[in-house]
Amino acid sequence: MEKLKGKLLYGQSGGPTSVINSSAYGVIKEALENQDIIEECLVMKHGIQGALNEDFIFINKQDEENIELLKHSPGSAFGSVRYKMEDYNDDDTDYVRLLYIFQKYNIRYFLYNGGNDSMDTCDRISEYMKHVGYDVRIIGVPKTIDNDLPFTDHTPGYGSAAKFIINTIMEVSYDMLAYPKGKVTIVEIMGRHAGWLTAAAYVATKNGYGPDLIYLPEVPFSIEKFKKDVRKVYDKKQQCLVAVSEGLSNKEGVFLSSSSALKDAFGHFQLGGVSSKLAQIINNEMRISSRNIELGTTQRSAAHLQSLTDVNEAIMVGKAAVKFAIKGESGVMVTIDRVSSSPYKVKFGKQPLSMIANKEKTMPVSMINKEGNGITDEFLTYIMPLIQGENTPKYKNGVQQFSKMKNGISKGN
Amino acid sequence: MEKLKGKLLYGQSGGPTSVINSSAYGVIKEALENQDIIEECLVMKHGIQGALNEDFIFINKQDEENIELLKHSPGSAFGSVRYKMEDYNDDDTDYVRLLYIFQKYNIRYFLYNGGNDSMDTCDRISEYMKHVGYDVRIIGVPKTIDNDLPFTDHTPGYGSAAKFIINTIMEVSYDMLAYPKGKVTIVEIMGRHAGWLTAAAYVATKNGYGPDLIYLPEVPFSIEKFKKDVRKVYDKKQQCLVAVSEGLSNKEGVFLSSSSALKDAFGHFQLGGVSSKLAQIINNEMRISSRNIELGTTQRSAAHLQSLTDVNEAIMVGKAAVKFAIKGESGVMVTIDRVSSSPYKVKFGKQPLSMIANKEKTMPVSMINKEGNGITDEFLTYIMPLIQGENTPKYKNGVQQFSKMKNGISKGN
Repeated sequence: MEKLKGKLLYGQSGGPTSVINSSAYGVIKEALENQDIIEECLVMKHGIQGALNEDFIFINKQDEENIELLKHSPGSAFGSVRYKMEDYNDDDTDYVRLLYIFQKYNIRYFLYNGGNDSMDTCDRISEYMKHVGYDVRIIGVPKTIDNDLPFTDHTPGYGSAAKFIINTIMEVSYDMLAYPKGKVTIVEIMGRHAGWLTAAAYVATKNGYGPDLIYLPEVPFSIEKFKKDVRKVYDKKQQCLVAVSEGLSNKEGVFLSSSSALKDAFGHFQLGGVSSKLAQIINNEMRISSRNIELGTTQRSAAHLQSLTDVNEAIMVGKAAVKFAIKGESGVMVTIDRVSSSPYKVKFGKQPLSMIANKEKTMPVSMINKEGNGITDEFLTYIMPLIQGENTPKYKNGVQQFSKMKNGISKGN
Repeated sequence: MEKLKGKLLYGQSGGPTSVINSSAYGVIKEALENQDIIEECLVMKHGIQGALNEDFIFINKQDEENIELLKHSPGSAFGSVRYKMEDYNDDDTDYVRLLYIFQKYNIRYFLYNGGNDSMDTCDRISEYMKHVGYDVRIIGVPKTIDNDLPFTDHTPGYGSAAKFIINTIMEVSYDMLAYPKGKVTIVEIMGRHAGWLTAAAYVATKNGYGPDLIYLPEVPFSIEKFKKDVRKVYDKKQQCLVAVSEGLSNKEGVFLSSSSALKDAFGHFQLGGVSSKLAQIINNEMRISSRNIELGTTQRSAAHLQSLTDVNEAIMVGKAAVKFAIKGESGVMVTIDRVSSSPYKVKFGKQPLSMIANKEKTMPVSMINKEGNGITDEFLTYIMPLIQGENTPKYKNGVQQFSKMKNGISKGN
C-alpha cells in the first residue's frame, strides 16, 4: 500500500452526543501517532461550513490540557452545523470550493463525525472526489444518541445518553415513591423514529425504580389503550410512571407532537410535546393528577454522567477511522461489531457510506413486549454492556471543566 | 441536666432534597452513639401520617448497607407526606392520637425533617405536648432545595440542587454554543417565591457557559422588558440562554404560570409553565426560534451529582438535632451559621420553631443586578463554598444503588 502523505481534516456535524469529542480525541491521537503520513491535523469549525469558509482549528496550536478535556466536554467542541449538500449533478458550487480547499491545504484525509445526514454528506463528497480524480480518503465516524444507524451494533453516544436517562429516571421514580398517593408522571425521551433511548428506561424498571409503562415510536400509539394501561397501573399502585418517546405517532403515522394530532375532551387541540399532551389528557379526561418531564437536550449533553465503555469506544472509533484511512479505505463508515455480549467484546469494522446514508435502524419486534407498552429482557442483554463504567468528570471548585479550543487564523492561513 | 430516656422518632416531610436522607443518616448515627439515653430509633413511614397510623420503620432491623446508602439515595427513603395539622384548639384529634402513640412507645425525642410547613407542624406538636405536660424534646431538622428558611445561612439540599443546576446549564450552554446561529433557550428552575436556585445559574455564567439573562421571583417581571433584553443579547450573539424561576410574577403579583397571566399576540392565553409561555412569546411575537427546558423534579432528586459539602452538612445537621435534644433543647430548629466564607466555616445553632414556621427568606437586593435581569458577584461569595466537593455515587453495573428500608410491623407492634 502506497503512503498517501498529506493533512487530515476532521469535522463534527448534527446534534452532538456527550462523547462526540471523545471520537475527536481518538482521531487526533491516532493522527499524531502517524505523523510520517499525516502531516497535520485540522478541524473544521462548525462542520462542513468551516471547510467551505476555510475556518479551521489547528490541533498543533492547542495545549495538551484542552485536548485531554475533550474526553469530558459535551456538545461539539469544534462547533457543529446542520447543512445539506446539494447533489453535485444539480449544483457543484460547494464541491468545487471543497476541492480547491483540499488542494490548497493538501488535505488527503477527510473524517466526518455525525449521524445519518452527515454520512450522506460524506458519501456525496466521496463520490465527487472520485469523480474528479482527487485522491482523498473519506471516512465517516458515527455518532448519535438515537442509536439508529444501520450496520453498526450501536453508535457512540447512545450508551452515555442511555445511562443518564436510566439513572435520572431511577431518581425521579425513587422520589415519586416517597408519597403514599402519587401522580401519573410522564417522562419524555428523545427519538423521533427509533425507540432505543426510550427503551433504556426499562433498565431502571429492572432495578426497582423505573417506568410502569414504556411507549416507543415503533408501536402505533392509541390514546384509548394508553388510558386503559394507565388506569390499570394507577388503580393498583396509586401512582404510575410512564416513559414515552417524543416520536410517538398514531396508526395513521401522524406524530402526536404535531399540533393537529390530539384533541382534548372539549375538542381543543392539545399544545406542547407528547408528554405534555398526555399529561393534559390524564388530568382532564381521567381526572388523575399528572405531570410531565421533558428531559430535552440534557440527554445528549450530560457529560457528567457518561458511560466509560461509551467514551472508550468513541475514542476507538475515532482511532479506527484514521487507521482505516491510512490503510487506503475510503467511502466507508466505521462500525462497531459485537463479538459477544458476555463477556462483552467488540471489534471495529467498516461499511460503505452509500449503504448507511439516510437509513434508520429501529428496535426489533422481539425487544418489545406483546402489549406494545413495555420491553423484553432480550433488550437487557443488548444494552447492559453499553452503560458500564463511569468517566469521572473533571470538577474544579464544584464545576466541570470543558475544553476550550483556540480558533485558527482562518481565510488563507 | 437530667437524662430523658426513651425512644427517638424521626420523620421526613414535604418535597425531598437529594440529601434529606443524609440528615436521616446523621440522626441515626448520633442516636446509636447515645444508646444509654436513646433506647431505640424509629422512623415514621410517610412522615406524620406514619406516626398517626403507627406505621414505623425500625432502624435496628435494617442492615448496615442500607443505612450507608442513605448518603446516596434521593427522595425520602422513609416516605414523605404533605399533611397539614389543624390548630389543636380547633380540632385536637391528631394531637390526642399522637400523644397516645408517644406514650405507648415511650417516645421522648421527636425529630421532623422538612421545610416551612414541616416546621409549622413541629411547632404545633411542640406546643400541644407542652400544653398537656408530656415530656418530649421536639427538634426541627431543616431541608429544602429552595433555601428559603429564615435564620439559617442556608438549608441542606440547596447546595446539591444548585450544583446540579449549574453543571447541567453549563452542559446545555456548551451544547448550544456548537451552532453558529442558535435559538433562544429558556431554562426553568424551581423556586416559587425565592430565587436562590435560579440565581445559582450565575455560577455557570461566571465559568463561561451560562445564561445571558436571569430572572428571579424577587423582581416583578415585565414581558416588554424581557423582550427588549432578549433582543439585545440575540442581536449581538445570534443566540441567548435565559434562566427563569418558575415563580415569576408580574407587578400585580400574578404568577406567570397561572393560566390567565399571559395572552399571546392573538389574544389567546398561553398554556404551560413559565418557560413554555416565554418561549411561545419569543417564537410568535419576536419570530426567533425558541425552546424551553424545565428541569422539573430532577433538580431535587439528582443524587448522582451532589455537593459533598452539602451531604456532610446534612449529616451534621441531623447529628446536631440529636445532640441538642439530648442536651434538653426542644421547640427549636437546627440552623447553619456561617462563621466565615474564606476559609469556609460553619457552626450549628438553633432557633425557636415559632420564629421559622411559615416565613420565607428571599434573595437580598444586593445580590440582584440593577437591571433586574442578572446576579451580582456578592452572591458568588455566598454560594461557592456550598457546591464544593463531590459525593461519588454508588454505581453497580452502571446504575445507582439506593437504600431499601425494610418496613416495620405496624399497627401495635
